[in-house]
Amino acid sequence: MKNFELFLPTRYQFGAGVVQKVGAEAGKLGRRALLVSGKSSASRSGLLATVETLLKAEGLFVCSLGGVDPNPRLSTCVAGARLCKEHAIDVVVAVGGGSVLDASKTIAALALDGGEPWDFFTGARPITRALPLVGVLTVAATGSEYGPYAVITNEKTGEKLGTFGEAIIPRVSIVDPSLTFTVPARHTAFGAIDIISHHLEAYLACEEAPLIQDELTEVVIRSVIAHTGRALADPEDLEARSCLLWANTLACGVFMAGRGAMRFDAHAVEHELSAAYDVPHGAGLAVILPALMRWRAEKDPARVERFARQVFGVSGNRPARETALAGIQAFRDWCRSVGAPVTLAELGVPREAWSRHAENVAGTPDGKDLGVAAVMEILSYAA
Amino acid sequence: MKNFELFLPTRYQFGAGVVQKVGAEAGKLGRRALLVSGKSSASRSGLLATVETLLKAEGLFVCSLGGVDPNPRLSTCVAGARLCKEHAIDVVVAVGGGSVLDASKTIAALALDGGEPWDFFTGARPITRALPLVGVLTVAATGSEYGPYAVITNEKTGEKLGTFGEAIIPRVSIVDPSLTFTVPARHTAFGAIDIISHHLEAYLACEEAPLIQDELTEVVIRSVIAHTGRALADPEDLEARSCLLWANTLACGVFMAGRGAMRFDAHAVEHELSAAYDVPHGAGLAVILPALMRWRAEKDPARVERFARQVFGVSGNRPARETALAGIQAFRDWCRSVGAPVTLAELGVPREAWSRHAENVAGTPDGKDLGVAAVMEILSYAA
Repeated sequence: MKNFELFLPTRYQFGAGVVQKVGAEAGKLGRRALLVSGKSSASRSGLLATVETLLKAEGLFVCSLGGVDPNPRLSTCVAGARLCKEHAIDVVVAVGGGSVLDASKTIAALALDGGEPWDFFTGARPITRALPLVGVLTVAATGSEYGPYAVITNEKTGEKLGTFGEAIIPRVSIVDPSLTFTVPARHTAFGAIDIISHHLEAYLACEEAPLIQDELTEVVIRSVIAHTGRALADPEDLEARSCLLWANTLACGVFMAGRGAMRFDAHAVEHELSAAYDVPHGAGLAVILPALMRWRAEKDPARVERFARQVFGVSGNRPARETALAGIQAFRDWCRSVGAPVTLAELGVPREAWSRHAENVAGTPDGKDLGVAAVMEILSYAA
Repeated sequence: MKNFELFLPTRYQFGAGVVQKVGAEAGKLGRRALLVSGKSSASRSGLLATVETLLKAEGLFVCSLGGVDPNPRLSTCVAGARLCKEHAIDVVVAVGGGSVLDASKTIAALALDGGEPWDFFTGARPITRALPLVGVLTVAATGSEYGPYAVITNEKTGEKLGTFGEAIIPRVSIVDPSLTFTVPARHTAFGAIDIISHHLEAYLACEEAPLIQDELTEVVIRSVIAHTGRALADPEDLEARSCLLWANTLACGVFMAGRGAMRFDAHAVEHELSAAYDVPHGAGLAVILPALMRWRAEKDPARVERFARQVFGVSGNRPARETALAGIQAFRDWCRSVGAPVTLAELGVPREAWSRHAENVAGTPDGKDLGVAAVMEILSYAA
């Protein structure tokens, strides 16, 4: 295992009904809350009203910011930070999926900052402080509830970039699987693909991996595949929803430990596409991830071959490349079977835009190691 | 999965050479350190001198307390707390295995307390505050580096009891596998058995377990068994030492999550024996754990049967009880193969003392659910 530092200071509350703790937990951190939410599902389900009631029952002042986009925008975060300053907010409460959490992390940092907001994403300045954040998670997908990362789209520049900082790690995460019963089938599937991608990118990134982490990761990916099927068949399958949320949380931190420097190549490529075409992150990953694996397998099939055997049970005494390709096909077929797109055409990405996207990806911090030629090759496998 | 709360705020530094960070990390938490260590191995290896030098290089005042016993005593902790008060200590630095860490946690709590020390262990008073603690781990065994628990022996009453509190969770844990190269073979084995016991007790405690946690636990136990063999064959096998330490850390917290109320029956019985006969904890567990599994299998073989198949590859179409017993035998054989005792006689426990021990166990907080008759049955299987 390679050296690593693990720092997971979030108070992580898991289980059906734990949303009831949100008032008490937020009340320990502040008296004046900004309640951040997404487009409409949390308000439609009544969850948002429940959280607001629980916060007010603890005597908290509540100011609301709804309408955070699935690919959250910098302008929304800037507006949220302005609200925090105007209303002397001292705790941010996020109700939603990864997008709402990422926007809330950014708001929490910008609320205590007076500089250029995009600096945190270009790497020009680090995040050193932020308001405390309580997250109420409603979708199993991004792992944002248990980590220091946030990804934001700058609608002025068309960039979608990530930042990180210990100050924006949620102080409390409320992970209640019953809140995910109402996640629509396609977003359940997209979320599952995002979970798999976090595990899989870490798994593929290593040349020589610690065996214990490989085997643990294989268990989790197999489990996500099995439980996604259950959740799609019965959206109120509590055990399936629980497993997806837990696998989601395990990805970021615990299961990446010891693998050495991480690469998030599929994320780097996908962020460019979801910024340009506003497609769901998990849908973009379903297209890019198999293509990335193909690119990897053509150079060195060993890791993908292992994935094929251990996760999809590809057997037989074939050359490593063939086994790897069979595994990639099985993964692509599974993505299609759960309703995800698997080609760039389905995402609306025209052939003539590829080189522009490749150059953009190669210009980002996460995509610079990949380079233009590799991105073009990956896009060609995703055609 | 059952509801749970996970709170792991330790800054966890892992890898060969990370011991070099101890000065900087302790320096962030205090200026006056109590350096706690065990009998002699850390001083013999030069580690203790290295840590002291690193602390002093950061400008810290260092006061030392050596000689913590393998089953650490309350009187040692009281003496350590007195040193803290006398020297205005503001950070405790532990260098050792689980015993030194547990003693240091207790010292850190008693240093800010004026009441009856044993109250924290009988449950009469909770631990609410403690000095910050930096742990430098030298043995893969107890999981104490990543959790709120401490176990102490009261040499006046003959009791060995556990306590817990968020205040005594290490603020920093330095987990450097190269420090464990010098752990003697028998203590490597005892540590591995302790690691397995944490995973296995959690695994056995559930009637109906979340499948993802079961499969993850099976990977870890198989991995501990494999890497113990490697570490015994080559004490400087860095990957094997790394895996044992990581499996150790995963046990307490992450892999117990979602299993519902935990029971540590084997620990409850073993603590009575190691308090009375001063045997290493892992040696006691090697005797008690197979016996506990037998007791469990006679009532309901399903969980032990699963363990037998998944961890020891027991196969065939036999009744569940037979498969379970074959798995227990395989585990017992493995314990013996790594040099651990597997009978009460080897621990020096005479038959006539059983009923006294059973009554003592049943009188402890962890043993009260088990009761005298069950402990007697377990002891009989350990004969």
